[in-house]
Amino acid sequence: MGTTFSVVGQRLPMHDGAAKAKGTAQFTDDILLPGMLHGKILRSPLPHARILRIDTSRAEKLPGVKGVVTGKDIPDRVYGIVPKAHDEHALARDKVRYIGDDVAAVCAVDPEIAEEALELIRVDYEELPAVFDPLEAIKEGAPLIHDGVPHNTSFSIHKEFGNVAKAFQESDFVFEDRFYSQAVNHAPLEPHAAVAQYDPLKGEIILHSSTQIPFFLRRNLASTLMIPEAQVRVIKPKVGGGFGQKIDMFAKDFCAAWFARQTGKPVKFVYDREEVFIATRQRHPMYITVKTGVQKDGTIMAQQFLAHADGGAFNSTAPTMMALSCYFLMIPYRVPNLIYEGHHVYTNKPVGGAMRGHGIPQARFAVERQLDLIAERIGVDPVELRLKNSIHAGEPHPAQFIINSCGFSDSLKLAADAIGWQEKRGKLPRGRGVGLAGASFPSGVSNMSHISSGSVVQMGQDGAVNVLSGAADIGQGAETVISQIVAEVLGVPLADIRITAADTGLTPLDPGTFGSGVTVRAGNAARLAAEEVRGKLFKFVADKLEANPDDLVARDRMIFVKGSPDRGMTLRQAIKGYQYADLPMPIVGRSAWFAPSTEPTTLFQQEGNFAPNYSFMTQAAEVEVDLITGKIKLLKMVTAHDCGRAINPMLVEGQLEGSVVGGMGQALYENVIVENGQVMNPSFLDYGFPTFMEMPEIGAIDIETDDPVGPFGAKEAGEGTQLSPAPAIVNALYDAIGVDFMELPVTPEHILEALQKAKG
Amino acid sequence: MGTTFSVVGQRLPMHDGAAKAKGTAQFTDDILLPGMLHGKILRSPLPHARILRIDTSRAEKLPGVKGVVTGKDIPDRVYGIVPKAHDEHALARDKVRYIGDDVAAVCAVDPEIAEEALELIRVDYEELPAVFDPLEAIKEGAPLIHDGVPHNTSFSIHKEFGNVAKAFQESDFVFEDRFYSQAVNHAPLEPHAAVAQYDPLKGEIILHSSTQIPFFLRRNLASTLMIPEAQVRVIKPKVGGGFGQKIDMFAKDFCAAWFARQTGKPVKFVYDREEVFIATRQRHPMYITVKTGVQKDGTIMAQQFLAHADGGAFNSTAPTMMALSCYFLMIPYRVPNLIYEGHHVYTNKPVGGAMRGHGIPQARFAVERQLDLIAERIGVDPVELRLKNSIHAGEPHPAQFIINSCGFSDSLKLAADAIGWQEKRGKLPRGRGVGLAGASFPSGVSNMSHISSGSVVQMGQDGAVNVLSGAADIGQGAETVISQIVAEVLGVPLADIRITAADTGLTPLDPGTFGSGVTVRAGNAARLAAEEVRGKLFKFVADKLEANPDDLVARDRMIFVKGSPDRGMTLRQAIKGYQYADLPMPIVGRSAWFAPSTEPTTLFQQEGNFAPNYSFMTQAAEVEVDLITGKIKLLKMVTAHDCGRAINPMLVEGQLEGSVVGGMGQALYENVIVENGQVMNPSFLDYGFPTFMEMPEIGAIDIETDDPVGPFGAKEAGEGTQLSPAPAIVNALYDAIGVDFMELPVTPEHILEALQKAKG
Repeated sequence: MGTTFSVVGQRLPMHDGAAKAKGTAQFTDDILLPGMLHGKILRSPLPHARILRIDTSRAEKLPGVKGVVTGKDIPDRVYGIVPKAHDEHALARDKVRYIGDDVAAVCAVDPEIAEEALELIRVDYEELPAVFDPLEAIKEGAPLIHDGVPHNTSFSIHKEFGNVAKAFQESDFVFEDRFYSQAVNHAPLEPHAAVAQYDPLKGEIILHSSTQIPFFLRRNLASTLMIPEAQVRVIKPKVGGGFGQKIDMFAKDFCAAWFARQTGKPVKFVYDREEVFIATRQRHPMYITVKTGVQKDGTIMAQQFLAHADGGAFNSTAPTMMALSCYFLMIPYRVPNLIYEGHHVYTNKPVGGAMRGHGIPQARFAVERQLDLIAERIGVDPVELRLKNSIHAGEPHPAQFIINSCGFSDSLKLAADAIGWQEKRGKLPRGRGVGLAGASFPSGVSNMSHISSGSVVQMGQDGAVNVLSGAADIGQGAETVISQIVAEVLGVPLADIRITAADTGLTPLDPGTFGSGVTVRAGNAARLAAEEVRGKLFKFVADKLEANPDDLVARDRMIFVKGSPDRGMTLRQAIKGYQYADLPMPIVGRSAWFAPSTEPTTLFQQEGNFAPNYSFMTQAAEVEVDLITGKIKLLKMVTAHDCGRAINPMLVEGQLEGSVVGGMGQALYENVIVENGQVMNPSFLDYGFPTFMEMPEIGAIDIETDDPVGPFGAKEAGEGTQLSPAPAIVNALYDAIGVDFMELPVTPEHILEALQKAKG
Repeated sequence: MGTTFSVVGQRLPMHDGAAKAKGTAQFTDDILLPGMLHGKILRSPLPHARILRIDTSRAEKLPGVKGVVTGKDIPDRVYGIVPKAHDEHALARDKVRYIGDDVAAVCAVDPEIAEEALELIRVDYEELPAVFDPLEAIKEGAPLIHDGVPHNTSFSIHKEFGNVAKAFQESDFVFEDRFYSQAVNHAPLEPHAAVAQYDPLKGEIILHSSTQIPFFLRRNLASTLMIPEAQVRVIKPKVGGGFGQKIDMFAKDFCAAWFARQTGKPVKFVYDREEVFIATRQRHPMYITVKTGVQKDGTIMAQQFLAHADGGAFNSTAPTMMALSCYFLMIPYRVPNLIYEGHHVYTNKPVGGAMRGHGIPQARFAVERQLDLIAERIGVDPVELRLKNSIHAGEPHPAQFIINSCGFSDSLKLAADAIGWQEKRGKLPRGRGVGLAGASFPSGVSNMSHISSGSVVQMGQDGAVNVLSGAADIGQGAETVISQIVAEVLGVPLADIRITAADTGLTPLDPGTFGSGVTVRAGNAARLAAEEVRGKLFKFVADKLEANPDDLVARDRMIFVKGSPDRGMTLRQAIKGYQYADLPMPIVGRSAWFAPSTEPTTLFQQEGNFAPNYSFMTQAAEVEVDLITGKIKLLKMVTAHDCGRAINPMLVEGQLEGSVVGGMGQALYENVIVENGQVMNPSFLDYGFPTFMEMPEIGAIDIETDDPVGPFGAKEAGEGTQLSPAPAIVNALYDAIGVDFMELPVTPEHILEALQKAKG
C-alpha cells in the first residue's frame, strides 16, 4: 500500500508476553492482600424452584466465617447488560431458575472454611416444573420462568428490508431449510475472579475483576449496591481470556464488594472450572429456519429467517445478540429483501451470553450451509454462487451500512485457490472433501449511548511514553496494538511505550472489549492523543530547525525534516530542549474518539451505518472422514481475511488461529450437554476441546485494505474469523461423504448414523 | 479574608485516613506477590576497613537462597541526590566507611533463610583507622574516608552578602558564640521497604518503594543499573512517614531491582528498625560559630557564620543542606551583611541527610540562642530585639528573596502574648521560665533543573474526578490537600475526588516531597488542570444558559450564574448534557506548574528569589525544671504561624503538632549516641522519643496571609514549625534557671551539672 511504517505492521511480541510466560503478570487471583477473606457461592441444585426459606445460622457460627448473605439481604435490584432487559439479581430472591443459580454467599478466612460453610446453609425449596428447550418453552402451558414474560419470550425482533413476498414471487426457486447450533462454552483459561476492597471514609468500593467491560461493571455494581457510580472503582488486572464470557457482572463481583463493605477487609472470589461452565455464560443454542429465493444463475432475491435462541435462565445480552444475528445476515452477501424474525426464549438452563461472534455464527452456519445446498440444487458452483452475490466497497446497502473497504470477493477467490478448489471439489476420493464459507463482522458498534473511547498520552523527560486507555486487554493483545499505534505516531520503538489500561478510577471512559471494536475505537483514540503530543513537540522542534512543523517526521527516536534526515535532532535532544525551555513536562495529549455517524442512534433503531468499518473473510476447509469409525480429521483450514491493515500481523494470526480452533470445536467437538437442566460435562476433561492433536494445518492469507476510518487503516480481527469455520467444515463433509448435516456438532456418531442411513 | 470557599479551608479528614486506620491501606510491605522472594543486606561491623575478599559460596549453597550479590558484581556507578556530589555505591566496593555500610545482599524464598544466608557470607577486612568527629576529621593527618577528598571536606560553601567587615566596624557590639546540635533520627513509623518486579521483554524494572521522590529514585536506579530511565518505573504505595529520610535511594531499592532482574521473580526488602537507625539517614550534627554585630538598640548590623557539619560516611544531600543552612540565615530577620562559611565533613558514622528543616534547625538554634544572649548582654527585651529586626513583606532582601506575604512580626507579638510574655518573662519562680524563637521556611525551591510539577484532572460521566499527580504523599496529607484544591475549583465535595499519586509510569513529572514545596507546586498544578476542566464545562453550560462563561460559578455540585443560583443546573445535568452532545468524556485538563522565576537558576547559583513564597512563625515555650532531679517538663508550646491560607487547618495542625514534638525531641530527648562508630541506641526503646506522657499543651495561632503565588494563598506548613521549638525551649530554660545551654540536647544530667557549676 505504498506507505511504510516502523512499528505498525511489525510482528512484535505482546508487550506483556514475557511477564505472562514467566508467571509474574498479575491476574485477579494473583492479588494477595493482608487480611484478605475468601468467598464462595452456594448454587441451586434444582432447575426451577421457589425458595421457601434459607437458614444460614449454622454457617454463621462456623469459626472463621465472617459473613453470609442471601438474596433477601441485598437490595431488590435487577441488572443486566442491555437497558430494559435487566432481569437478574446478584443472588436469587424468590426463585432459582437453573441448576447453578446463585443462592447465597459466604466469606471466611480461607476458601476451605467458606466451602465448608456452604454445606451448613439449609435451603428449603418448592420444586417447580421446568422446561429445557426453547421450542417447548414458547408453547402455551409451558412453565413460566420469569413473571410477566408470556411464552418465556423475553425479546423478539422483527425486521423487514425491501419486499420479501414480492421477491419470492419473482424468484426462480425458493428453498426452505432448518438448522440448529448447539451450546458451547467459552472456557477461558483464567476462571472468573474478583477481589474487592472498601474504603469506609469515601464509601468507595475498589473491585479488581476479570472483566471485559470495566465501565459497565462499575455501572451494574453501583446500581445493585445502590451507591453512586463515583463510589465504585473497577480495576482490570491481566485477564486470561474472555471471548464474551466476562462481559456480564456475576455474583462473585457483587458479593466480593458486599462483603468488603460489610467486613472492612479485602475479599476474594475465584470460580472453579465447574462454576465457569454452569454458572457464567455460554453460546446460545439456536434453531434457525432459512427460506431463500434465488434466480437460476444463483442471484439471491430474498431471504426470510425465523430464529429461536435458547437463552437459558436470563437475558444477559439477549437483545444485542438477536440484533447482531439479524443485521449481519445482510453482509457479506447482497440480500436486497430480507425478513428476520427472532425470539429469545428463557429455559431452565445455563445462561446464554455474548460469545465470539455473538449471535452471528449460528446465523452464518444456517446461511452458509444453505448456500451450499442451493448450489447443489440449482447446479451452480458454491464459489461462483458466493462471488455472484458478494458485496463490494461503495455499493448501497439495505440497512445503510457504509462499506468503505471490502476484500470479500478477493478472500473467496484466494481461499478457494489455496485449498485447491478446482482440483479437489467433487474430485477427491470418498471420505475426503473441501468446503468453504464466507463472513463479515463489524469493528464495534458506531454509537453506544454517547460513549466515546478516550486516551491520554504523556511523553516524559526520560523519553518514555505513558498511555492511559480505558480499553480492556483480555489476552488478545489490545494493549500491544494500542502501544504500537502510539509508537508509530511518535516515532519510537514499542519498548518506549508503557500502557495502563482499564481502571475506571484512572483511565478514560471506554466502552470495553466486545464487538471487536477495540482496535478501531481505542486505537483511534490513542492515535489522536499521540498526535497531540507530537504536535507540541514538532512545534518546538520546528522553531529550532527553522522549519515548518508540517514538514517534520518522527521516526526511530529522531525528528527531522521529511526527506532530509540530516536536518533534525534526536528525540532525546528535542525533549531536553523542550524541558530546558521550561515548557511543561510531561508533554500530554488527550483525545476521545467517536465512530463517525450521521446522527446519534442506538443499536436497535440502527438504520444507519452500524459499525465504523467491516472485516471480511472466507474459510476453506479440507476434511478427511474415516468411513469405518466416523472419525473426522480437519486436515487444513485456509483463512483469507481482510482486516484492513494488520497493526501486528502476529497478533492477527493469533486471533485467526484461535478462531479456527473455536470454529472447529463448534463444528466437531464441543457441546454443553444438559440433561434435565444438569450440565453433564462441566470440565476440561469431559467437555473435550480440540487439542494440539487435532490442530489442522492453518494457512492465513492477508488481504490488506486501507480502511479510511480505522487507525492506520485497521479493521477488526478478533471475531470475524470465528464465524464460518463450522459451515466450511460441514460443507467439506458434504463433499467428502455426500451427507448434508443440518445440526452442530457433527460427531463420529452422526457420521456413522448418516452413512448407515445412506446405505439403508 | 472575605472570600469564602466550600472545600478549601475545611477541617476534613485525610482522604485515606479511614483505610489507614482500618489497616487496609497498602504500604510497601503489604505488597504480596505470587512467588515473591525476600532479601536481606549484610552490613559492615567495622567503621572503616578495606574489603579484601568476600566468600559467598556457602550462602549460595543454602537451600532456598536464590541470589547473592556483592559490590564487585554490580556496575561501578556512584549515585547521590545532588549532581557532582555522588559518592555512594549501592553496595560497598573496596571499602566500608561506617558500621552498617551495605556489603552484600541475599535473596531467598523467605526472610529467615535470607537472614541465615547472611551469616554464611565470609568477609575478610583490613581494618583502617577511623574518625568520628568533623573537627578531628578536617585535621591534617586524619584518616581519609574517600579518595580525593582532602581534609574529608566533601563540600564547602562560602558566601558573602554586603560588607561584613565594614559593618562589624560600625557596630556598637560584636559578639561571638559557638553552638552544637546533635544527630537525631527521623524514625518514621514505616521502615524502609522495596518490592521490585522485572519484565524480561521490556527489560523494565517496576519498583514499589517507600520513597519521597519517585522520579529521583527512578533516575538513581536507572543510572546505577545502567539502563535507560524509561525502563524503570517507580511506584509509591502508602508511605508511613519520611521526614526526609526517604529521599535517598538505598541498597534495598537497588538490590530488589537487581535480584528481580536476575531471578525473574518479585523481590521484597524491608529494613528492620535497627537498620533504619544505623543505615539510612539522620540529621547532621553541626558545630556553628556565630559572630554578630549589633547597635545599642539591637539593630543587627552583620553576622558571620562558620559551620562544620558531620556528614557521616557519604554526601547524600550535603550541598543542598549547606546551601539551605546559609540562605535561611537571612530570613526572618533583616541581616544586611552576612558571611557564611560552611563545610560538610565525612566521618566514619551513619550518614547525614535531609531531615525536616534540612540544615536550618541547626542554624536556627545558633541564631535564636545568640539573639537571647545578645538581648541579655545589651539589655533589650528578646521580643523587642526580634521585632526590631523582623523582615516585612515587600522589603528588599540581600539575597533577592521576594517576600510577597509575611506574618512574622504578628507571629512574634501573638506568640509572646499567648505565652504571657509580659507577665512571666523574668518573673516566674525559679525553675520556671518562658522563651521564644522565630523562623521562616521556603515553600519549595523555585527552580530545580527545569522540573515542573504536573497534573492531569479528568471528570468522568459518573461525576467522579480523577487526579493524576506526581506528588508523593508520605503521610502528611498531600493527596488530601491536592484533592481539596481540585474539589474547590470544580465545586464538588472532597468525596468526589479520587487521586492517583506518584507512579512514574503513570503520573506526571513532579519533583517529589521535600523542601515543603508540595502544596504550592503540586497544588498549583492541580488547580490549573482543574480550571481547564471547569473551563470546558463552563463553556458548554454557558451556551445552554445563554450566559457568559466568566459569570459562572461551580459550587456544591451545581453550576450557576454568579449571584443567581436559580439560573443554573446541577453538575450531573451538565455532565449528561455534555456527554449527550457527543463532547468527549472524560473532560480532561492538564497542567504543569513552574514557580515564577525571572531566569532559570539552580540552587547554588541562586541569587534571585529562592522559593515561590515563605512561611513565618514564632514558637513560644514555657518550661518547668525540677531543681532536685534536673527533669525538664515542657508545659506549653505556642506556635503562631503564617502558612498563608490553610487549605486544611486540621492537617496544618497535625504538621504543627508533629513539628513541636520533633523540636522538643531535639531539644530535650533525642540523640543518636555513637561510640567508636557504633550506634548505641538504635531502637524505639533505647532512643527515647517524647511520648504522649511528655506532650505539652499546644496552642496554635493561625496568621492567615493570602499569598499571591500559592494555590488559594497557601504556603508551606510542613517544616517551618520544626525549626525553632528547640531554641525556644532552651531560651525558656535560661529564664527558668539562668543557665545558657549552647549544645543540644539538654538533659537532666546537663541541668544538674549546670546547677552544680552555678552553685560551685
